[in-house]
Amino acid sequence: MTSPRLADQLAFLVEIDKVKQVLRQTVLADGSRRENDAEHMWHFAVAALVLAEYAREPIDLRRVLTMILVHDLVEIDAGDTFVYDEQARRDQEEREREAADRIFGLLPGDQAERFRGLWEEFEARQSPDARFAAALDRLQPILLNVESHGAAWRRHGVTSAQVLERNRTIADGSPDLWEYVQGLIQEAVAKGYLAP
Amino acid sequence: MTSPRLADQLAFLVEIDKVKQVLRQTVLADGSRRENDAEHMWHFAVAALVLAEYAREPIDLRRVLTMILVHDLVEIDAGDTFVYDEQARRDQEEREREAADRIFGLLPGDQAERFRGLWEEFEARQSPDARFAAALDRLQPILLNVESHGAAWRRHGVTSAQVLERNRTIADGSPDLWEYVQGLIQEAVAKGYLAP
Repeated sequence: MTSPRLADQLAFLVEIDKVKQVLRQTVLADGSRRENDAEHMWHFAVAALVLAEYAREPIDLRRVLTMILVHDLVEIDAGDTFVYDEQARRDQEEREREAADRIFGLLPGDQAERFRGLWEEFEARQSPDARFAAALDRLQPILLNVESHGAAWRRHGVTSAQVLERNRTIADGSPDLWEYVQGLIQEAVAKGYLAP
Repeated sequence: MTSPRLADQLAFLVEIDKVKQVLRQTVLADGSRRENDAEHMWHFAVAALVLAEYAREPIDLRRVLTMILVHDLVEIDAGDTFVYDEQARRDQEEREREAADRIFGLLPGDQAERFRGLWEEFEARQSPDARFAAALDRLQPILLNVESHGAAWRRHGVTSAQVLERNRTIADGSPDLWEYVQGLIQEAVAKGYLAP
């Protein structure tokens, strides 16, 4: 008795369970293990709920949450690309585009188009909603890196210059949070969590 | 230079990282390991995005998402209570209330009140938003149980009568999804994933 539409929606929900197995470079705050994409998307979404007041421009929180909750699904096929890995970042766009075709394509047409559109908007960072989401996507691993005493930074020999360069777009989404992050990076260097 | 307000908000975001370590009885779709609360909240939130059209009454999706994204934070202190464990369910309410005081209390007053209010609304299931969220909170583990060939059900000797009884409130949030779940339970019994 299940309609084809509902069957497609449920098949999508089962398929995306796989993102719980995609590991990121970031380590949990207690340093015990690496974080996965599902955990990251949840944490990132709660950060949007709590920090919405710091957005540089007016945002539509429902759209921001939707963007966040689906933004890493492409990594089921394309894998996680470490933000400081220049080599892997080269063909990342192509790999993620193919993944988006397949994964969002499991949904009924109207939903496939809407979620894929939000994913593209997030990637392009040309709207207020996407700029704010992108800022939080950068903030969340920095918080975990500091809490875990620089676990991922030290493992990959990342320097403070790289962290500053890679994350300065936080200012486009939230000048307040960028000011805070700069202080956090200085502190991390002082404590030896991050190479100067 | 960080304001006390932002400092409290970030301390909350770091504290709730712990929910990634709270394991549920539910097993991932591929059967490989138990799911944690952060993964569950993410999956449940995406289910709300995809299945919103099946809500029995008009809902405010932004409120529903907020409710979902914080509903299991109390388990950082109170632990996960298996839905079929009658013993543990007895003092669950008291344990969770104390946890809510502490965890939401880390936020600035206005946010603490708002998130706690949404958590209480979710628990009470007296509003359209809460009834729809509660339906999806039941649906998500049923999907994973069926995909993992009844891993959690078989481990705890759960019967189809228990699953039907415990989950019939899905109908209050979404008659369409309840009709679908009843079919799924019959199928699970036929395949030997669930005791008759």
